[in-house]
Amino acid sequence: MATVFSNAEGHGSVNKNDFAKRPPMGWNSYDYYDTTVNEEQVKANADFMAKNLKQAGYEYVVIDIEWYAPNAASDRENYQYIPFERNEIDEYGRFQPAPNRFPSSVGPNGERLGFKPLSDYIHNLGLKFGIHIMRGIPRAAVHEHMPIKGTGYTANQIAYPSPVCPWNPDMYGISATKPGALEYYKSIIDMYAEWGVDFIKCDDICNIKGENPYGSRGEIELLHRAIVESGREIVLSLSPGPALIEEAWHLERNANMWRITDDLWDVWDLLKDMFRRCEIWQKHVGGGNWPDCDMLPFGMLCKGHGCEHKSNLTPDERLTMYTLWCIFRSPLMIGGELTLLDQDELALLQDETLNGLNMYGGQPEQLFNDGKIVIWTNVNTKTKVRYIAVFNISEDEQDFHGVKIRPHACVLTEA
Amino acid sequence: MATVFSNAEGHGSVNKNDFAKRPPMGWNSYDYYDTTVNEEQVKANADFMAKNLKQAGYEYVVIDIEWYAPNAASDRENYQYIPFERNEIDEYGRFQPAPNRFPSSVGPNGERLGFKPLSDYIHNLGLKFGIHIMRGIPRAAVHEHMPIKGTGYTANQIAYPSPVCPWNPDMYGISATKPGALEYYKSIIDMYAEWGVDFIKCDDICNIKGENPYGSRGEIELLHRAIVESGREIVLSLSPGPALIEEAWHLERNANMWRITDDLWDVWDLLKDMFRRCEIWQKHVGGGNWPDCDMLPFGMLCKGHGCEHKSNLTPDERLTMYTLWCIFRSPLMIGGELTLLDQDELALLQDETLNGLNMYGGQPEQLFNDGKIVIWTNVNTKTKVRYIAVFNISEDEQDFHGVKIRPHACVLTEA
Amino acid sequence: MATVFSNAEGHGSVNKNDFAKRPPMGWNSYDYYDTTVNEEQVKANADFMAKNLKQAGYEYVVIDIEWYAPNAASDRENYQYIPFERNEIDEYGRFQPAPNRFPSSVGPNGERLGFKPLSDYIHNLGLKFGIHIMRGIPRAAVHEHMPIKGTGYTANQIAYPSPVCPWNPDMYGISATKPGALEYYKSIIDMYAEWGVDFIKCDDICNIKGENPYGSRGEIELLHRAIVESGREIVLSLSPGPALIEEAWHLERNANMWRITDDLWDVWDLLKDMFRRCEIWQKHVGGGNWPDCDMLPFGMLCKGHGCEHKSNLTPDERLTMYTLWCIFRSPLMIGGELTLLDQDELALLQDETLNGLNMYGGQPEQLFNDGKIVIWTNVNTKTKVRYIAVFNISEDEQDFHGVKIRPHACVLTEA
Amino acid sequence: MATVFSNAEGHGSVNKNDFAKRPPMGWNSYDYYDTTVNEEQVKANADFMAKNLKQAGYEYVVIDIEWYAPNAASDRENYQYIPFERNEIDEYGRFQPAPNRFPSSVGPNGERLGFKPLSDYIHNLGLKFGIHIMRGIPRAAVHEHMPIKGTGYTANQIAYPSPVCPWNPDMYGISATKPGALEYYKSIIDMYAEWGVDFIKCDDICNIKGENPYGSRGEIELLHRAIVESGREIVLSLSPGPALIEEAWHLERNANMWRITDDLWDVWDLLKDMFRRCEIWQKHVGGGNWPDCDMLPFGMLCKGHGCEHKSNLTPDERLTMYTLWCIFRSPLMIGGELTLLDQDELALLQDETLNGLNMYGGQPEQLFNDGKIVIWTNVNTKTKVRYIAVFNISEDEQDFHGVKIRPHACVLTEA
Repeated sequence: MATVFSNAEGHGSVNKNDFAKRPPMGWNSYDYYDTTVNEEQVKANADFMAKNLKQAGYEYVVIDIEWYAPNAASDRENYQYIPFERNEIDEYGRFQPAPNRFPSSVGPNGERLGFKPLSDYIHNLGLKFGIHIMRGIPRAAVHEHMPIKGTGYTANQIAYPSPVCPWNPDMYGISATKPGALEYYKSIIDMYAEWGVDFIKCDDICNIKGENPYGSRGEIELLHRAIVESGREIVLSLSPGPALIEEAWHLERNANMWRITDDLWDVWDLLKDMFRRCEIWQKHVGGGNWPDCDMLPFGMLCKGHGCEHKSNLTPDERLTMYTLWCIFRSPLMIGGELTLLDQDELALLQDETLNGLNMYGGQPEQLFNDGKIVIWTNVNTKTKVRYIAVFNISEDEQDFHGVKIRPHACVLTEA
Repeated sequence: MATVFSNAEGHGSVNKNDFAKRPPMGWNSYDYYDTTVNEEQVKANADFMAKNLKQAGYEYVVIDIEWYAPNAASDRENYQYIPFERNEIDEYGRFQPAPNRFPSSVGPNGERLGFKPLSDYIHNLGLKFGIHIMRGIPRAAVHEHMPIKGTGYTANQIAYPSPVCPWNPDMYGISATKPGALEYYKSIIDMYAEWGVDFIKCDDICNIKGENPYGSRGEIELLHRAIVESGREIVLSLSPGPALIEEAWHLERNANMWRITDDLWDVWDLLKDMFRRCEIWQKHVGGGNWPDCDMLPFGMLCKGHGCEHKSNLTPDERLTMYTLWCIFRSPLMIGGELTLLDQDELALLQDETLNGLNMYGGQPEQLFNDGKIVIWTNVNTKTKVRYIAVFNISEDEQDFHGVKIRPHACVLTEA
Repeated sequence: MATVFSNAEGHGSVNKNDFAKRPPMGWNSYDYYDTTVNEEQVKANADFMAKNLKQAGYEYVVIDIEWYAPNAASDRENYQYIPFERNEIDEYGRFQPAPNRFPSSVGPNGERLGFKPLSDYIHNLGLKFGIHIMRGIPRAAVHEHMPIKGTGYTANQIAYPSPVCPWNPDMYGISATKPGALEYYKSIIDMYAEWGVDFIKCDDICNIKGENPYGSRGEIELLHRAIVESGREIVLSLSPGPALIEEAWHLERNANMWRITDDLWDVWDLLKDMFRRCEIWQKHVGGGNWPDCDMLPFGMLCKGHGCEHKSNLTPDERLTMYTLWCIFRSPLMIGGELTLLDQDELALLQDETLNGLNMYGGQPEQLFNDGKIVIWTNVNTKTKVRYIAVFNISEDEQDFHGVKIRPHACVLTEA
Repeated sequence: MATVFSNAEGHGSVNKNDFAKRPPMGWNSYDYYDTTVNEEQVKANADFMAKNLKQAGYEYVVIDIEWYAPNAASDRENYQYIPFERNEIDEYGRFQPAPNRFPSSVGPNGERLGFKPLSDYIHNLGLKFGIHIMRGIPRAAVHEHMPIKGTGYTANQIAYPSPVCPWNPDMYGISATKPGALEYYKSIIDMYAEWGVDFIKCDDICNIKGENPYGSRGEIELLHRAIVESGREIVLSLSPGPALIEEAWHLERNANMWRITDDLWDVWDLLKDMFRRCEIWQKHVGGGNWPDCDMLPFGMLCKGHGCEHKSNLTPDERLTMYTLWCIFRSPLMIGGELTLLDQDELALLQDETLNGLNMYGGQPEQLFNDGKIVIWTNVNTKTKVRYIAVFNISEDEQDFHGVKIRPHACVLTEA
């Protein structure tokens, strides 16, 4: 009866719940670089991480969206993502790194090397390498009827024409049940595995923002299966949020992390909103499953977006964020440029108590929430110390059993 | 720091997770009697249960809606619930059994005895006694400014005027934070405890069918607290559904069972729909928490509704229903009139394998669902036998690994 | 075949399209007094109108909500409308003026005179008298099963228990097809006619803010019919908005004015929003039908609401509002306390050009709207002068064919 | 000040309200042929119309969707519209008739003649010629960056990547404010004018079925302007419905007809639903503006859809439909294959009374509607005869003032 267990674990050579025993920690290029990051910048952040954050538990270096676009951000006034562009693509409809941004992706004879050289560089630092991808198949491949590698199918046979991603113009979705669909996903995952990718952040897949927000269910299963069958331990991270709680059971079978919020930025209201989201997801944390509160917008942000600035979070808000992320055990992905972090920010990211709670925590639990005071607890299973965090999410100072807590601030104590 | 744990267990004399170690099993008057059941009929069903179903695990005898309405169903052509009626109520705004329907509720000198005599009768059979209540406080009490027992408050001070329940006209909701609100809920729960009530099905509370379907959150907490502080082990069952999965964590703190569907009837489409609902709730079953698939519409139904008929479920569908309810570990509440069950129906309700799975099951898990074949598994933790149920929810016969399964039918096997 | 024309005009003694040949102009107590206005205050405003605004076309003096509530506003911290109060009501379930606020409503022997004495006073000034009512029948009358005048029916037989008005707790809706429903509406309208009422602002009827916002369709027809059959020319004004444009044809058959917006206040965003609403309704103006942009929040406001203040509209915004209302031909109901108007405000309300356009205008037409500049035209049919109003609804000064227009300002020219 | 009147009439050489003084009458290929109609079939229907229906007022012969698709319907099992196909297109991104289906569209030397020869044929019969188009610009043109005729712009510069039409995969929408957008619309309309097109049914434009259903407002204005400036009197018909009543004023400025329903078929429930739609639109009929109840599904239908059948409408329902369409003054577009009409159908389409009412009617008015009996009236302004149509839309015979009316039937009388 084994064949019926097709949604379950165990039929391949790797098991997703072995990839991420603790919440993934790392850096992601998006919050500072938007679509513009290049090889030199990635390396600089990797170097910084190896030196300053690796010991604290940070390990993933992730290149975010449109690394295949040579002209990315060249018309930022009109578009974040220029539509109908001629992006870097191979003969099987698979995006490749843009050589002008990632010179190591082209060999001395012009041969495509993908991200392998950059991945090697990062691995040599003792770190792991991740990339962002968009769900589906490039529109260009579809209109040109490109072949799917190793098959007799062509791109137009597996793509569907509508709906399309509302915010990025690069892809068409794939009909998961069409012949050739799995083969296409395997063709890209196998290529990423060859490149040495350890982490994939797949976008436009967790909540696709239309009538049927979890309409990508079939593609999620294909991606998971392609990873399992690739034999490489690649963490699968799904975006954007908010993920649907009614699909928690399905997400837990197929991915390692999923965004429980839409894009988070350095704005108090978005941070405050996260308390509600963590409340909903509190019983779904652990064992390879990590509801994801999104990147930490600390330090310098938004150079690529054309509005470079220092994070608007106050020190109290920053601590509130890091404390919540750690006690809830969200993945920790730093969004700001690492080399520009100040000493306070760096010290927080190296905090042993909070990082320990994140890495070795048990089941997070919200004990109380009256809209002003919010209390969470968790235990460091290694030290056996239980912690209680009391947050003041109101606009006024609160007196909590004699302890005064500033607005937007928090207090962490041992229980 | 103990006072902050006001949502958590432990501050009273009883703990809700001790009340219902296994999914509650019993009979409910609604599916056959609607609003009309009387004392004699309740006793007849209790007698039947004691003789034929008690050994199989059934124990709760539950009187459903409007036991306080002397004229219930007297204008069934226009109303299921006649609005603005003069119902039986005491001086503290608490509904009482209608004496014309429940003669034992009035003593020899006209004194009110409530359901105590009927409860005694049922307890003497070795069974347990339950009642249905509506969330809130009677509108009549509110407009008459009745006092809340043991307080200086009056009913109009704790009620809110809108929204009102869209389907039943008897009550106003209670503002949970108003002084007097907890006291009112304690005044009714304490009375029910004195009556010997073991099970409360509270209606218009789990999904209140408006802009804010979980707007009764505060009243759920008051009810739970009133039960805890009553010192009596009263199972709390919340209706109607569908319950909101994002509130699972809150339901698990405050109640024992909650409906995951709107009213279920003897209709295949509603039964089929339950597979989707069980899928969503599969990780939330056990330990005093029982997502509730609603009553089993077996046997004779709907006399009180004016359309008495034999259940429209075929034998295959009936088996499908009972198998799903048992492997998922839903509460099992028989809806049809017990004394009119036929031998096949009775035999199914006495099935030792299925009842054993329901009573001693572990974590239910859906293994597969392609919209035609659905597969669930669970283990009887007492016998250690694991079962797999394969359901055909399509309209055509399905060949499942050589086994032919009729439409709407299922096969249960040991794994 | 005449009997089939039951929705159409002509079966009674008065025709609604004769009541309001031009957009009604007057004063309404709500914006300043909320629920608190009393007889003395009404008279003072009427006196002021007779002296300063009558010549400009103003004539209606309208008492707004809860004139039947003796304790209105006595718990303003918790409620705008105190629920479950004992309001002034006669034996037929009809609200009466609260004697403590309207002393003339009680005769020397305690007999109820209603608003007749106050109405006489206003008529003697050459003005007209109006009142606000809530759709439906008092909840108190329903729970007490009060008789409907001149019939064998009781209030509970015509009321429905849900939904209820979400913002005011005084009434239940009436099932328009129940025997007794028309009779109840006739019983109140005939009473108002005896009182000398010339204008009824019926609330909770135009958009009832629920799943079926025009669910009061039947009650609108009953109200219209009751007015027609009363033989008195009573203008019927429906609130709140926004009215549904798909019901324009029905509103045009049954009422004289209907709110095309929710409550308007002295806030630019609400005023700006009105341009979009007027755009939608532009072809539905005239001949007894007056889409209503709501009261003019000029002068002193909100004393009754507990936040008395001078209107926040700047002189430019005030002129923009009055110009739009006049060129669109909205009813003109002054919201601020008349006796506290300053000279500029008064001068604007007396403006002959704008008032002439409002009173004698033709078909309003929006000529242009690019989100910054909006242009409307209309003609004074008496003088034959055509006007063009150019509004700047943006936040920046706009150069319009060489004319500079400040933000939130407008220019009116002859075409 | 003339330049501000950019939405208004008069700035071009033709005025839309002169194109269609009466509701357009004709035949459309869709209901029988779906995407498959060819030149021979069009001519056969034109011949039939000239001989049998021209005298009754019918004049337009309209070729519906995908006349540019050589392989249309070749994969009907999977797609109504095959996505990502290579359709017939010229060097400026303008679709051309598929030569295999419309041989006359290619000259002796392979030069493209478009529909000019077919249009000539139809004009020679004394009839008029129409085509269907999709809003926007072909996706193929966009991905290939094709030039816009007479400009330096390319297709990718005016298209937007999302949202896309949910039901047809051929086009991208055009950003109306982009330079080149008007030029593209002019380039196609001018080509159609050269072809001799008298009627354009533009699809995916009236209600685009997404978050912003009237999001094509700007493209509607461009289309209208392109027609005005083309100098040819081309009727503009907008699909699909339901049109938004709040945009009636805008539709009336820019188009001649707009669908007030989604696709209508030979199903009673859809026909019944039309009464509600006509009720809403009753005040918007006349003077070049024709709310459109959709095609008449009479006779043989759906050959191209793969389910050829005789219309399911009963004779009573067919008469009900034609009577409603005529008294309401909807455009009359026959959907079935003309050459296969039977004598009764043909006789109805030639009915002088009903056609006279449609062609020379005044303002339609619904007099009554209780959900069972619906009554409409209109006058033939030529004969001065007023008609009253009484429809029974219930499932039971109705006695209307002594006249018995069958279910789904109607009675037309002179008033």
